[in-house]
Amino acid sequence: MPKVFLTRRYKFSAAHRLHSETLSEEENRRVYGKCNNPAGHGHNYCLEVTVTGPVDPETGMCSDVEELDRVVKESVIEKLDHKHLNFEVEEFDGRVPTGENIVQVVWEILSKSLPHLYQLRLQETRDNFFEYRG
Amino acid sequence: MPKVFLTRRYKFSAAHRLHSETLSEEENRRVYGKCNNPAGHGHNYCLEVTVTGPVDPETGMCSDVEELDRVVKESVIEKLDHKHLNFEVEEFDGRVPTGENIVQVVWEILSKSLPHLYQLRLQETRDNFFEYRG
Amino acid sequence: MPKVFLTRRYKFSAAHRLHSETLSEEENRRVYGKCNNPAGHGHNYCLEVTVTGPVDPETGMCSDVEELDRVVKESVIEKLDHKHLNFEVEEFDGRVPTGENIVQVVWEILSKSLPHLYQLRLQETRDNFFEYRG
Amino acid sequence: MPKVFLTRRYKFSAAHRLHSETLSEEENRRVYGKCNNPAGHGHNYCLEVTVTGPVDPETGMCSDVEELDRVVKESVIEKLDHKHLNFEVEEFDGRVPTGENIVQVVWEILSKSLPHLYQLRLQETRDNFFEYRG
Amino acid sequence: MPKVFLTRRYKFSAAHRLHSETLSEEENRRVYGKCNNPAGHGHNYCLEVTVTGPVDPETGMCSDVEELDRVVKESVIEKLDHKHLNFEVEEFDGRVPTGENIVQVVWEILSKSLPHLYQLRLQETRDNFFEYRG
Amino acid sequence: MPKVFLTRRYKFSAAHRLHSETLSEEENRRVYGKCNNPAGHGHNYCLEVTVTGPVDPETGMCSDVEELDRVVKESVIEKLDHKHLNFEVEEFDGRVPTGENIVQVVWEILSKSLPHLYQLRLQETRDNFFEYRG
Repeated sequence: MPKVFLTRRYKFSAAHRLHSETLSEEENRRVYGKCNNPAGHGHNYCLEVTVTGPVDPETGMCSDVEELDRVVKESVIEKLDHKHLNFEVEEFDGRVPTGENIVQVVWEILSKSLPHLYQLRLQETRDNFFEYRG
Repeated sequence: MPKVFLTRRYKFSAAHRLHSETLSEEENRRVYGKCNNPAGHGHNYCLEVTVTGPVDPETGMCSDVEELDRVVKESVIEKLDHKHLNFEVEEFDGRVPTGENIVQVVWEILSKSLPHLYQLRLQETRDNFFEYRG
Repeated sequence: MPKVFLTRRYKFSAAHRLHSETLSEEENRRVYGKCNNPAGHGHNYCLEVTVTGPVDPETGMCSDVEELDRVVKESVIEKLDHKHLNFEVEEFDGRVPTGENIVQVVWEILSKSLPHLYQLRLQETRDNFFEYRG
Repeated sequence: MPKVFLTRRYKFSAAHRLHSETLSEEENRRVYGKCNNPAGHGHNYCLEVTVTGPVDPETGMCSDVEELDRVVKESVIEKLDHKHLNFEVEEFDGRVPTGENIVQVVWEILSKSLPHLYQLRLQETRDNFFEYRG
Repeated sequence: MPKVFLTRRYKFSAAHRLHSETLSEEENRRVYGKCNNPAGHGHNYCLEVTVTGPVDPETGMCSDVEELDRVVKESVIEKLDHKHLNFEVEEFDGRVPTGENIVQVVWEILSKSLPHLYQLRLQETRDNFFEYRG
Repeated sequence: MPKVFLTRRYKFSAAHRLHSETLSEEENRRVYGKCNNPAGHGHNYCLEVTVTGPVDPETGMCSDVEELDRVVKESVIEKLDHKHLNFEVEEFDGRVPTGENIVQVVWEILSKSLPHLYQLRLQETRDNFFEYRG
C-alpha cells in the first residue's frame, strides 16, 4: 500500500546561549563564536514535522491532522515557545541547546506519541537548518 | 553514472470539499472539520515534480525540460487549474480530493509519460504539504 | 509625536467564482477568463492589516495587538475562511468577489472597529495582490 | 530630477523581554502576554533600510551602497546581533525593546549618518512587522 | 471614488556589467566593486508593476489584467529576459544597467501604454530592491 | 550514534550561456531554447550544502560550522560569484554550465575538503532546482 508523507510546519520563538560546561571559557568562545555571548540571543524557529503512512481509502488521509497538531502544540510548542531554552526547559539541563540537540529533544518527545513520525526539520535562521530521522 | 535530481515547480488554484460518501454527516464533520464545509473552499496549490537520470555528457542535462513542462501543463495543470476538484475532475469521482489523493492522482497521470519521475511534492497551504514517491 | 506602522498577517482559504450578473455570458468569459469557470476555484488568501498610531511611552507599543488579532479573527477570518465567497458571505450578494471587492469589504468591516486602520493588502496568488487605504 | 528608492535587507538575531518598569506585574502580564515571560525569548529580526535620492547620471546610482552597508553593519548590526536587548544595549535602558522602540532606536542611529534615509521596516516574526519614517 | 492598487509580479533573468564609460578603470572598480567584473554576471530579476484606479462597479475590477500582462510581457519581459543588458538592449547604450537605471527604463516603456501606472519595484537579489514612481 | 543533517545556504550571482560545442547551431537552439542566446544571461543561484555526522556530546554539534563556511566561501563562492561561468571558470572549459553540471562541479570541489558532505541543492530560478548526492 503506497505511503504518502505529510508535513506540517510550526513556529516558536526562543532565546538560547551556546555554552558547554565541560569546555573552558576560551574553548567555548572558539567553538560557538558570537553564539556564546553570555546574555544569550534568540531566534524564530520553524519546525517541520513529517509523518507517513498508508492512505485510508475511506477518508483519503494518512494521518489524523487535528491530533497531530494537538500533540505538537501541547508537547513541544508550549514547552519551547517564548522561553529561554537554557533556563526554562529541563531537557536542556546539561545539554547545550544547539540546533542538533533541539531537534533530537523534539524527536524524543514526539516519537512517544507519534508512531508514524518520519522526519523533523528545524530551521533556526534563514540560512541554516537541521534534519533528523531518529 | 551519477544521477542528478531536477525539480520544477508548477502552480494551480482549485476549489475542493472534503466529504466522504461512505461516512455519516457527523463522521464527515469530525474527520474533516471546517474542510467539510458544504459549499467548498479553495487553495493555491504548488506542485513540485522531481525527475532524475544520468547527465548526458553532450548536453549537460538529465532531462528534456521543455518536454517535461509540456507534459505537466497539458496533463495536470490544465485538468486541475481553476477547477472545482469534486465536480469537474473525473479522477475524484468517489475519491475525496485530499492532498494525499491529489498527489496520488497526479502521480498516476505523470508516471505514464515520465519514466524518470522520482517524487511529487504538493503544497496545499503555507504550512502543510504532501510528498509521494509511488 | 512620531507614528509607527504595525502590520500583522492573517490567512484564509476560500473558493470564489468571478461572474457579474449585469454582464452577458460572453462578456463574463471575456472579462474574467478562466476565473469565470462555472463551478468556481479557490485561493489561499494572505491579508495584511496595517494600523498606525503614536507609540505609548509607557508600553512602547502603538496598538493593542491582542485586541487587533481578536477583531480581525472574529469579524473577518471567521466570515471568510473555508467558505465559498459567492454563496456563503452576504457581503458578496450582488458584488463580484474580485480581489478589489474583497479588500474593500474587509475595509468596511475593520474600519468600524479599528480607528487607526491605515492600509490593507490582500495577496490572492503568488504573483498578484491588492492594496487599499479607504 | 526623479528619485529612486533603494532598499537593502539586513539580519540580526537577538533576545528580549517585554517588561515595563512603570507598570505593575499584573499589568505587564496583561499588556505583553507571553512576551513578558521573565527569562526572555528571541527572534530573527529582518531590517530593511530604504534610502532615496536622485540618480547620478554618471554612475547610474542613487546611493553609495558599500558605504550604506558599512554604516548599517558597524552602527546597528554589531550593536544588536546576538545580544540580549534588555541587558546589553544601552539604548534600551528604561525603554521597552518592543518592535516599535527598536525601529525608532535604529532610526535615531542611522539618521545621523544617512541623510537620505527614507524608511525602516523591521520584521520580528513571519507575521508581524513595523515601519517608521521618522 | 475609492482607488485600489493592483500589483502583479513578473520575472526575467539577465546578465549585466556595471561599467561607466565616463569613469576611469580605477574609478569603475571603486564605484562598482565586483559588479565591474569585465565578463559580467547575472541575476533573476523580479519586477512588480502597480497600477491603480477606481473599481468598476460592474466588473469589480480596477484594471484589465489580461491587457496589463500582455503589455508588460511584450514590451518589457521579451526585451530583457535571457539577455545581456549591456550588449543587447538599446536602452542601455551609454547608460549603465544599474537597478536604478533598469527601473527607470521600464517606467519609460510602460508609462506610454499604462496610464494608471503607479509604481515599479525591481528586486535584483534577495536583499536589495529598487522602487520608482516616475 | 544518531546522525543529524545540517544544511547551510549560500548565494552567488553569475552569467552563463548554454551552448554545446559538439552540437550544431540548430541543435543548440532546439535543446537550450532561449538559454542558448549568444550574449548570455544570468541568475541568482542559491546553493544549499548538507553535511551529516554524529552529534558530539560535548559541543552538541555535528559539524564545525565556521570551517564549513570558510571552505564553501573560499573554494566555491569566490570562484563562481559575479563571474561569467563560460569564460572565467576553468571547470567549465568544454563542459556546458547547466544546473546539472554546476552542481557536479561544486561536488567535485567540496567533497575533497568535506568528508561528511551529504547533498547539494542548487536553485537556479524560483521554479527550478537541482540536487546531487555524488
